[in-house]
Amino acid sequence: MANDHNTILTESIKRLLRRGATSHLAKIVNKAHVADLALVFRSMTLGNQKKLFAMIEDTEQKGDLFSALEENVLLDFIDSMRVDDIVEVMQNMPSDDVADLLGKIPQKKADAILEQMETEDSEEVEELLRYGDDTAGGIMIPDFIALPEDMTSQKAIESIQKDYHDVEMPFYIYVVDENYKLLGVISLRQLVVEKPQAQLKDFMATDIFSVRTDMDQEEVARIVARYDILAVPVIDETHQLVGIVTVDDVIDIIRLEATEDMLKMAGAGEVFVETQSVLKSTRIRLPWLFAAAVGGLLSVFIIGQFEESLQKLAYLAAFIPIIMAMGGNIGTQSSTIVVRGLATGRLHVTDLWKIVIKELSIGIILGLFYGLLIAIVAQVVFHETQSSGAFALSVGLAVLISMFIAALVGSLVPMLMARINIDPALATGPFVTTSIDMASVFFYFIIATALLGL
Amino acid sequence: MANDHNTILTESIKRLLRRGATSHLAKIVNKAHVADLALVFRSMTLGNQKKLFAMIEDTEQKGDLFSALEENVLLDFIDSMRVDDIVEVMQNMPSDDVADLLGKIPQKKADAILEQMETEDSEEVEELLRYGDDTAGGIMIPDFIALPEDMTSQKAIESIQKDYHDVEMPFYIYVVDENYKLLGVISLRQLVVEKPQAQLKDFMATDIFSVRTDMDQEEVARIVARYDILAVPVIDETHQLVGIVTVDDVIDIIRLEATEDMLKMAGAGEVFVETQSVLKSTRIRLPWLFAAAVGGLLSVFIIGQFEESLQKLAYLAAFIPIIMAMGGNIGTQSSTIVVRGLATGRLHVTDLWKIVIKELSIGIILGLFYGLLIAIVAQVVFHETQSSGAFALSVGLAVLISMFIAALVGSLVPMLMARINIDPALATGPFVTTSIDMASVFFYFIIATALLGL
Repeated sequence: MANDHNTILTESIKRLLRRGATSHLAKIVNKAHVADLALVFRSMTLGNQKKLFAMIEDTEQKGDLFSALEENVLLDFIDSMRVDDIVEVMQNMPSDDVADLLGKIPQKKADAILEQMETEDSEEVEELLRYGDDTAGGIMIPDFIALPEDMTSQKAIESIQKDYHDVEMPFYIYVVDENYKLLGVISLRQLVVEKPQAQLKDFMATDIFSVRTDMDQEEVARIVARYDILAVPVIDETHQLVGIVTVDDVIDIIRLEATEDMLKMAGAGEVFVETQSVLKSTRIRLPWLFAAAVGGLLSVFIIGQFEESLQKLAYLAAFIPIIMAMGGNIGTQSSTIVVRGLATGRLHVTDLWKIVIKELSIGIILGLFYGLLIAIVAQVVFHETQSSGAFALSVGLAVLISMFIAALVGSLVPMLMARINIDPALATGPFVTTSIDMASVFFYFIIATALLGL
Repeated sequence: MANDHNTILTESIKRLLRRGATSHLAKIVNKAHVADLALVFRSMTLGNQKKLFAMIEDTEQKGDLFSALEENVLLDFIDSMRVDDIVEVMQNMPSDDVADLLGKIPQKKADAILEQMETEDSEEVEELLRYGDDTAGGIMIPDFIALPEDMTSQKAIESIQKDYHDVEMPFYIYVVDENYKLLGVISLRQLVVEKPQAQLKDFMATDIFSVRTDMDQEEVARIVARYDILAVPVIDETHQLVGIVTVDDVIDIIRLEATEDMLKMAGAGEVFVETQSVLKSTRIRLPWLFAAAVGGLLSVFIIGQFEESLQKLAYLAAFIPIIMAMGGNIGTQSSTIVVRGLATGRLHVTDLWKIVIKELSIGIILGLFYGLLIAIVAQVVFHETQSSGAFALSVGLAVLISMFIAALVGSLVPMLMARINIDPALATGPFVTTSIDMASVFFYFIIATALLGL
């Protein structure tokens, strides 16, 4: 398992560090894959990170490691480096990674770095910095193969060998006109298979998917995933080809967006904080619980209104948890299905009513089932008490109404949010749960006092 | 936006179907990308699906459409087809997709199909059927380029043109010995760039990632994602190269696994059911709510034990919701972070105590904060009643303990489950929430009766 493999690597490096076995360490560090080194770095002190980093001989490897490191680890590390050393490493990183990074460090330091970079590199980076972080422009690679349509396949292969030898993802050849307008695409395999004298325009595919620089990265990821392509070309407002988004970045986006959605729905922030400090995690999670606290305090007042009823019939209180739990659980089911369905493109905002009505139908069926079940239990348990029938009916009705409301709120709120372009995952966490709690408790007491004449 | 683009396509096709504009329809259907057609099919009746399907001229396109359709849509569609017609389409599908599909239709029909397929194809499929659905063997493609190490790069290019022209993902060339043992790997680009007379062994990379046929697909996906590769070779127990897992399948796995985890955590089944019927959805979701119902009924008995206390002090009941909500919300935070962290490889089961202690620390800090806040509110609201100080203290302590227990259960249970190889997402849904609810209510009443002398 990759994880175990990594634990072993981390442990050996730690052991060698303690023993000061520098030459052995250097050998391991220079042989390891940067993706593995990045994981090792995560559990090292800054001092040890610096020691290991200094052992890396190849500057390109240093650049790759920077690209592979998790954001918070990298930012801490960079914070401790001199500008000269950062620039040296960054010259060896893909410009989209550099742009990403510069967007996250203090403006002053970023400017100093840009100033010291070679003009060609810094221009590419500044170009990328123009685009929003989460857009196609922000995640694209500006290195790609673009050739004219009248070039022969033989010349094209020669050009790839000569002019494009350091392109990261050389699997598609884009055919462009003199204004860099995209005309067609050819896979590297096709090029290899074609006759040497055939012109690119003779065999290029012309039905090309492309995305605009301002398209949201989630949408870009959906397109790459849906059409099973390895890279999608990115076009600016003047229809010029300016970059490509590659499948490896798409994988990262898909994982990240799923993580973000889960954390948002759980009210635990937006970015994964497990590797950060207790205090930082606490600070991120504290405000989300505020919704639950405020909702809970409102419930205190709601129930407070029924103090008299409770004094007459103390066991009314015993059913508060089950009524809250039934509503809460079905609400979570509904909102999870809707949020994930919207994120994966399996549900569409235009189907709002179809989806909400379906969730409501499910809510009613499940509400009838569990309402009846719980009413029967209430009747059996309390059959010796006065007006036990009315009490059982109250409890059953309260369960039904709670589950009905929960299915409604749990599906309608995220659908409405998506419609007005607010992230539905964000709107679905503690707020929805809390409002379902309050509504459940409120209707329970209204029904019980009415039916029992309290 | 891809979704809007698709809505437009679906609407035009529906309109043309109503008008019976067959020739126009046929043109659209044959021009559309199968990924788009698959989405159109989702919202069509079986009758209309059959009409559209009959219009597709190219059998290969029919095979691609089968591969692109969602499972439940495809199974319904196939159910209505004759074996001959299915076989004709399946001959044009990648054998991994065929194997996947045959594993899901009734054994008898699957056998009939296999029997009618051409021997070569059916052997490949039967080979794949040997492996578990969710393993590297189950998702691999058995088509790949494998060449001997002493072949020259020129001969290799010729061989790719001649022998491997229908390989799906020709981006890596695997170098093998006479027993198909994997020796090295070469990217297609490298091959194009090398001198014609260079032998493959001279420039192949020998530090290759490979996976075993029985490796879990999630693990395979993690490896492809971590090392940014387009395909990973799959090796069987005799170290023979038997297939590759490609990045487009990895994307599907990553999305699917995230969806599954979310649904499991919400107690809403394992597969996305939104497109299925109300009754089917209800049936899937009903049993999960049972945990909440049983837990809720146990809470009835717990609170029932304190009936006397409630009769003396009715407003004890008013704080039940807030104590449950504070525990429930922090429990969801903890379990989501742990489950997602384990799934993405950012947390590791061997760090069990480190992670649980961190969550507990956060639980205590947040518990102290919100316990104090809620105690102050209780004191302010009930300051005119007898022993309001003791009451406020009880409420505050109950919030603290509830949040402490929730952080403990929410992090410990999924970590333990992962350790004994039970899916942590499955163990984290309604069961954890329900047990936190019960514990919260129980300790609240214990503390309150003790401190208030009820």
